[in-house]
Order: sequence, then structure tokens, then C-alpha cells
Amino acid sequence: MAPLHPIGIFDSGYGGLTVFKEIERFLPGYDYIYLGDNARVPYGNRSFETVHEFTWQCVRMLFDMGCPLVILACNTASAKALRTIQQRDLPGYDAQKRVLGVIRPTSEIIGQYTESRHVGIFATRGTVVSESYVIEIEKFFPDIKVHQVACPMWVPLIENNEHLNNGADYFVKKYIDELLSLSPDIDAIILACTHYPLLLDKIRDYLPNHIRVIVQGEIVAGSLQDYLQRHPEMNARLTDTGTRKFYTTDDPVDFDAKAGLFLGHSIVSGHADLG
Amino acid sequence: MAPLHPIGIFDSGYGGLTVFKEIERFLPGYDYIYLGDNARVPYGNRSFETVHEFTWQCVRMLFDMGCPLVILACNTASAKALRTIQQRDLPGYDAQKRVLGVIRPTSEIIGQYTESRHVGIFATRGTVVSESYVIEIEKFFPDIKVHQVACPMWVPLIENNEHLNNGADYFVKKYIDELLSLSPDIDAIILACTHYPLLLDKIRDYLPNHIRVIVQGEIVAGSLQDYLQRHPEMNARLTDTGTRKFYTTDDPVDFDAKAGLFLGHSIVSGHADLG
Repeated sequence: MAPLHPIGIFDSGYGGLTVFKEIERFLPGYDYIYLGDNARVPYGNRSFETVHEFTWQCVRMLFDMGCPLVILACNTASAKALRTIQQRDLPGYDAQKRVLGVIRPTSEIIGQYTESRHVGIFATRGTVVSESYVIEIEKFFPDIKVHQVACPMWVPLIENNEHLNNGADYFVKKYIDELLSLSPDIDAIILACTHYPLLLDKIRDYLPNHIRVIVQGEIVAGSLQDYLQRHPEMNARLTDTGTRKFYTTDDPVDFDAKAGLFLGHSIVSGHADLG
Repeated sequence: MAPLHPIGIFDSGYGGLTVFKEIERFLPGYDYIYLGDNARVPYGNRSFETVHEFTWQCVRMLFDMGCPLVILACNTASAKALRTIQQRDLPGYDAQKRVLGVIRPTSEIIGQYTESRHVGIFATRGTVVSESYVIEIEKFFPDIKVHQVACPMWVPLIENNEHLNNGADYFVKKYIDELLSLSPDIDAIILACTHYPLLLDKIRDYLPNHIRVIVQGEIVAGSLQDYLQRHPEMNARLTDTGTRKFYTTDDPVDFDAKAGLFLGHSIVSGHADLG
């Protein structure tokens, strides 16, 4: 059998599966490897150095599995590690490999979702502190004002399957109140953490109807499709037998049990050894 | 200056500081090094293999810093890694070093806290699944029945400084209801995670008055004092200049900002590189 050259999808844990689900729907023919760093999740509160070190290690694991292209399907990793990987790590490692994130694709189309030009961001503390969305959106839409709130309780609520229960309401309301207190003019909010789509219904319950909520999965999938059309040399390097493989740095049995919640169907994953 | 031979205190993050605080109060003269693995916290939901790998790596870092004795001030690490470290790792590494946990000292004195002989355990999922408390308590008090409930939301609430706010009440009540539904006869409950003492006031609010709540810090400190009296050869190897050093595997600035909450006074920590 010829070796596979899949698209690698990386996340700190399960959240990236919400992005992978949409990528797979848009581009079902390619081969994919998903890697979740569940042994060290969550990344949201960790320092720049730690997030970069963990992310770059996992990206290299995906390279070693044959992926010429890796998507960081994690906002914290995109915010804290992508630039260093693209500018410093990759050139000295293998200049033919590519790593893409989720912040740029979201930022470059946000203009079409807002009339007031006031956009809200719900994200991890790490993503907020990095100011990545503020910086990226400013490049494409200098007229848009970005308002950010860190939501550190949302990932634990989702990872512990409490996001549909009453205990989640306090923390949904808390962060929404915090964001809307920053500006009454916000008319679009980005769920800038790939876990958050699982809280979408509760978030909508507490938001005024005129505010649009932007989920990243479709946007990132559309952007990847566009990237592959614009880069035929990368497209030619990818294989397309429709294979999917899933790896976790922690216990595959635990991973499989929870992955279905994010993906909508069951999977069987393997263990990736951090060494 | 002669090299220090401190007592090493290890925890996955901040929680062990509640134990260190009591150890320091009981035994102020010794030298201590505290190491928190904040880059990879929390350990509570991770697999046996991962908790063992991370714990053993950090224990060796404390050995390398001169500690002949290391206390795992973390229930998950004590539950999932201590036995392997004591029985498999240490003999081949350095048979003169010692590693002690927090589960044995708590288990061997629990008999004096219960009349009904029904004891409850609040712990991380990892500690519960390991059955360590069930097994250890059975050794000392075969007549005691142990009832366990995993409280996976409590560490995130505490680490995000939400434990005194109203949003915590739902999850305090939830796990208490779950435990008391297992047996109406429980008259003593162990807070079997070193984070949980910060939730003590709220836990007491929702518990019937006749139920005793057992916090581990004092117990572990008393047990260490006893150990050093019974092991003069180890005691003779420890230095006693009263030095305290703190290290974290993540960002020291973040660590220092939160450590005060657990310790009751401010500290200045250094970075320990996971390599």
C-alpha cells in the first residue's frame, strides 16, 4: 500500500473535533489524522512557552505520521504557537511543510457578520491575553472594534458533560453579561474556542436575538478548501483514499467515549506516545 | 555554602500548598522545595500511565534538586503513581530515596472520626477509579464501608477563583447529594483532593451538622513528623536551615499570583523546565 499523506488536525483535546467534523463534510475525499493532546489538556491557561512547546511537539508527531499540512484546530495553540512555528520552527525543520490556524480564517471574513462594527470574542484566557483576534481583525477590518471576554469555566463544563445542565447557566450568563457590559453595540460574537459550539444553545438563550453567534467549523473548512485550490502544489502532495485516523496522547478508551459527543458518531482511536 | 537536602513537596499544581502549609507549621525547621506541575495540571481525569509518567518525571526533578525525601501532596498522584514509583522505579534508580503519599496517612487514622463506620470520599475521578481509599482503609479498618463520589468540577472552580461565588453552589450541592444518596449513615467525609479545603465553607453549608469533614493537611503533617521520628537515618540526611523554595513547570508569575490564595501569604517561585 502506498504511504498516506493525510491532512493533520491538531487540538489540545476534543474541541478540534467540532472543526474536523466540518472539514470532513466540506472535503470528504482526503485522508485525515486527528491528534488530541488529552494528556496535557487544557491549554487555555498555560503560558506562551508551554503552549508553544506542547503544540510544536504534537505538530512534529503529525509530520512524522506523513502529514505535509497540519491545521491547528485550537484557538489557544493558534494564538500562542502558530506564529513561532511558521516563522522560526518550520524553516529550519522542513520548509515544505505547512501549518495553518483558525484565527486568520475567522478574522478575514468577520466583516460580513457585523453592521455595528462592534464584535465580541468569547475565548480562553490564553487567546484573550495574546490579543490575536484584535491584531488579526485590525489587519482586515481596521474599522471594527473588538471586545474580548475570557470564559475559563466553559471548557471544564463541556469536558465534564455539564454544559446542558443547570449548573452551566450561571457561567453562561456571567460571561455574556461581562461582554455586553463592554459595549451595548456588539452585534456579532465569535465563539473563539473550538469547545464552545457545544454550549451554543445555552449561549443563544441568554443573548439578545439580534446578536449573531459565529461558530468556526464551517469557516475554517471553507478556508481550507480555498487554500487547497490556491495551492495546487500542496494539494498534489495529499492523498485521497478517504481514510480517517484518530490519536490521543492519553488513554484511547477515554478518548473514544467522549469523542462521540463532539463528532456525532463513534470512533476508535490509538495512543500517541509523548516519549 | 553546604548543599541543602530539603524535603520535596510535589503536586500537580496549587493544591499541594494546602498540605505544605500544615507541614511547614508542624515542622518549620527543615528545608523545603515545592514543585507544582502547572504546565500539565489537572491530573484528575488522566490515565494511570500518564499520571505515573508525569509524577515520576517531577519526583526525579526534586531528587536532582537534592531532596532525599519527596511527599506526593496530591491524591491523584498518590493513587495512580505512588505504588509503581515505590515498587518498580525507586529500587532501580536510587534505593536510598523515599517517596511518600497522602492516602496511607489519611486511611490509617480515619477510624477515629467515624462512629457509624460509613465514610464518604470526595475526590477526583482518577482517585475514585483507582479505589485507593477503599483498598487502604480496608487494610486498617475492615469494618468501615467507604462510599466515593468524583467531583470533577471542583478543581476548575477553585483554580478559576469561582469557589466562593454562587456558581459553585450547584456543584457543591450536586456532589453532596450524590454521596448522601449512596448511604444515609455516612458520618465522616474525607476531602481527598488537596484543592478541596478551599471549598470547605460551602461544603459545610450543604452538609448536615453531624457529619465531620476531614481535611488532609494536618493529618499528612502529623504523619510526616511521626515518620521522621521513626526513621532517624532519613532525618539525619535532611538539612534544617529553614529555607523554602518554590518551582512551577509553567510561568512563575502566574504561579505566584495564585499561590497566595492557597498559602495565605505571597511567594516568589522559579521555573522548572520539563526539558
